[in-house]
Amino acid sequence: MNIYADNAATTKMSKAAIEAMLPYMDEIYGNPSSLHSVGQRANEALADARMRIATLLNCEPREITFTSGGSEADNQALISAAKLGERVGKKHIISTAFEHHAVLHTLDKLGKMGFEITLLDVPENGLITPEEVEAAIRPDTCLVSVMYANNEIGTVQPITEIGAVCRAHGVLFHTDAVQAAGHLHIDIKAQNIDMLSLSAHKFHGPKGIGVLYSKKGILLSNVIEGGAQERGKRAGTENLPAIMGMAAALEEACHSIDEHAAHLIPLRNKLIDGLAQIPHSILNGDKDKRLPSNVHFCFEGIEGESLLLLLDDKGICASSGSACTSGSLDPSHVLLAIGRPHEIAHGSLRLSLSEDVTEEEVDYMIQAVTDVVTYLRNMSPVWRELTSGKSEFIIK
Amino acid sequence: MNIYADNAATTKMSKAAIEAMLPYMDEIYGNPSSLHSVGQRANEALADARMRIATLLNCEPREITFTSGGSEADNQALISAAKLGERVGKKHIISTAFEHHAVLHTLDKLGKMGFEITLLDVPENGLITPEEVEAAIRPDTCLVSVMYANNEIGTVQPITEIGAVCRAHGVLFHTDAVQAAGHLHIDIKAQNIDMLSLSAHKFHGPKGIGVLYSKKGILLSNVIEGGAQERGKRAGTENLPAIMGMAAALEEACHSIDEHAAHLIPLRNKLIDGLAQIPHSILNGDKDKRLPSNVHFCFEGIEGESLLLLLDDKGICASSGSACTSGSLDPSHVLLAIGRPHEIAHGSLRLSLSEDVTEEEVDYMIQAVTDVVTYLRNMSPVWRELTSGKSEFIIK
Repeated sequence: MNIYADNAATTKMSKAAIEAMLPYMDEIYGNPSSLHSVGQRANEALADARMRIATLLNCEPREITFTSGGSEADNQALISAAKLGERVGKKHIISTAFEHHAVLHTLDKLGKMGFEITLLDVPENGLITPEEVEAAIRPDTCLVSVMYANNEIGTVQPITEIGAVCRAHGVLFHTDAVQAAGHLHIDIKAQNIDMLSLSAHKFHGPKGIGVLYSKKGILLSNVIEGGAQERGKRAGTENLPAIMGMAAALEEACHSIDEHAAHLIPLRNKLIDGLAQIPHSILNGDKDKRLPSNVHFCFEGIEGESLLLLLDDKGICASSGSACTSGSLDPSHVLLAIGRPHEIAHGSLRLSLSEDVTEEEVDYMIQAVTDVVTYLRNMSPVWRELTSGKSEFIIK
Repeated sequence: MNIYADNAATTKMSKAAIEAMLPYMDEIYGNPSSLHSVGQRANEALADARMRIATLLNCEPREITFTSGGSEADNQALISAAKLGERVGKKHIISTAFEHHAVLHTLDKLGKMGFEITLLDVPENGLITPEEVEAAIRPDTCLVSVMYANNEIGTVQPITEIGAVCRAHGVLFHTDAVQAAGHLHIDIKAQNIDMLSLSAHKFHGPKGIGVLYSKKGILLSNVIEGGAQERGKRAGTENLPAIMGMAAALEEACHSIDEHAAHLIPLRNKLIDGLAQIPHSILNGDKDKRLPSNVHFCFEGIEGESLLLLLDDKGICASSGSACTSGSLDPSHVLLAIGRPHEIAHGSLRLSLSEDVTEEEVDYMIQAVTDVVTYLRNMSPVWRELTSGKSEFIIK
């Protein structure tokens, strides 16, 4: 059995998305900035894609900026809000300890530029509260950035409520919706969102393309300088094939959110319940307020990388956490943020399901993970120390 | 007859490039950073593409950073070199007045950060000399950035010689090779190039992907912060389909440079000679030291936009200059740099030929441009003033 359960890292492109891209590669291949008819046909398609994406997010087309992906959108959102804040003497930014590195590393950069950064603690359930956000807001706060759904443990934040708190205090609110877009309902106006980042390859669209939504009136600062594309705010010839693919993928995904959730949630819960039967295992993140596709566990006495390689031998593609940091030996900052000790954080497993996962596949994953965890523990000196009582279990 | 003569703005993707992309959309679609087999297959492809591109440019794979395109690569090159210079107290940068805006606007940003920028004057022939570069180098110069071939008038700079001057003075040398890559021979080692930018969609590859070459030992500064991709120097999931398409397109283009030049140069020269017959017209840029595909003229008494629209009616897709600035009413900074007055700069026409252009198409273009220029002049009050002697011709 072959199961791709790493959809949080990236997804297989949908047929509709691929088909939407192709005509813009060798038929309507003009530069949308060109005045001639080949360029103008490209420009019309660009406007159409912008309109369709704006409709899906409930914003205006001119509030959409196309970027090379979620990371660039996150960078631009934070830098823009910071520069706007600086103009009026507001140099305090609030975010959380379990954001994606595209946010955290940009905040590090802003920190070096004299901004003061408050990273909210994340409770064990992986849910930030609006109260926590409100308590951190100061007169000099220029931005709150809280991710919509966490990319490792999948917890879904109360974005509407956090947005309302920010709105009430006159503070810009950005959300990294890279894991949420196409999987959870987004309504920018109703949710009080000022800036939002998304990435097409997380919802069966192409890689290398994303969106920065920014509410009209927010002056963006360029991350990439050059030509006058994207109202002068993002230079570089528009990646029209990818934009068309993204629009098609987002439409397809958004139109099926409820249907996908109805299919996924019972299977996700079955998978969670099955893996919870493994002794000394613990689910990371709230059981209900999580992405319909996300299952994330820690197993005591296990080294995550070995677990992944043995699961791969059994045909299961999974990850320990974020693909973006998989080269690193450091434990996940997300797991540390929710209070998992280093020893436990190293033994993590993320299964991020695709919308067409079957019950049979879920049963197979439960059995495979159980077998592999048992096998690895039997070989592990750490596990022998734990079971012999020489050291104490952290996960009871 | 339909002729796409705006290949400097963007190109039609080649069949080989499209075919090279497709398998990475829905077969080998893994995230190259993922440890599982689907990710590792993607990672192997990524390494293979990097190796092939490095071979074509004569550099090492680890000297290649994949970016979202030429603009991002230009931005990152300049910012990185500036920051390296700043560390050792060198804050002077040399470039030219006719660079692409991705370079000029980044230099503006660096100027605001305290760097001193010298923009070399460009002579009427559009050719920067190594002597001019050398004369501008100061003890505090940290970077010289001179484009390989100009994106409007197509003149090809003596990159090898400029590189040698920079090397002799211990100054980093960057070249924006967006118009050159795939069209002119590039040998990074032989040409003394320290940093180079290229963009795939200029040589029949996909949009949204480019390369920043940086000689080993040059510490890059991130333009996009986040995950650890590209040795930590360019965050964001690698756009593998586009990278594979770029590698295929660059191979195809580089293997045919001489063959394409042999076909194009006589046709380009025929087109130049034909258009030079139009009274009060002038070729922009040196006749020989220019891209094999580039023809660029100014016609007195003509408004460029009208010329383009009427040519489009005749099936010819052309441009007045850079697509990146086509929304602007300002005359081209390139034409002003080579000394064309405003009145003349507004009446410009760039025909950038594809490699499969035919003699019949060239004949058609000569006739069409001649007809349209005559037609527009007959309607123009400015032209009547000129021909009646009430005002003087600038182009004799």
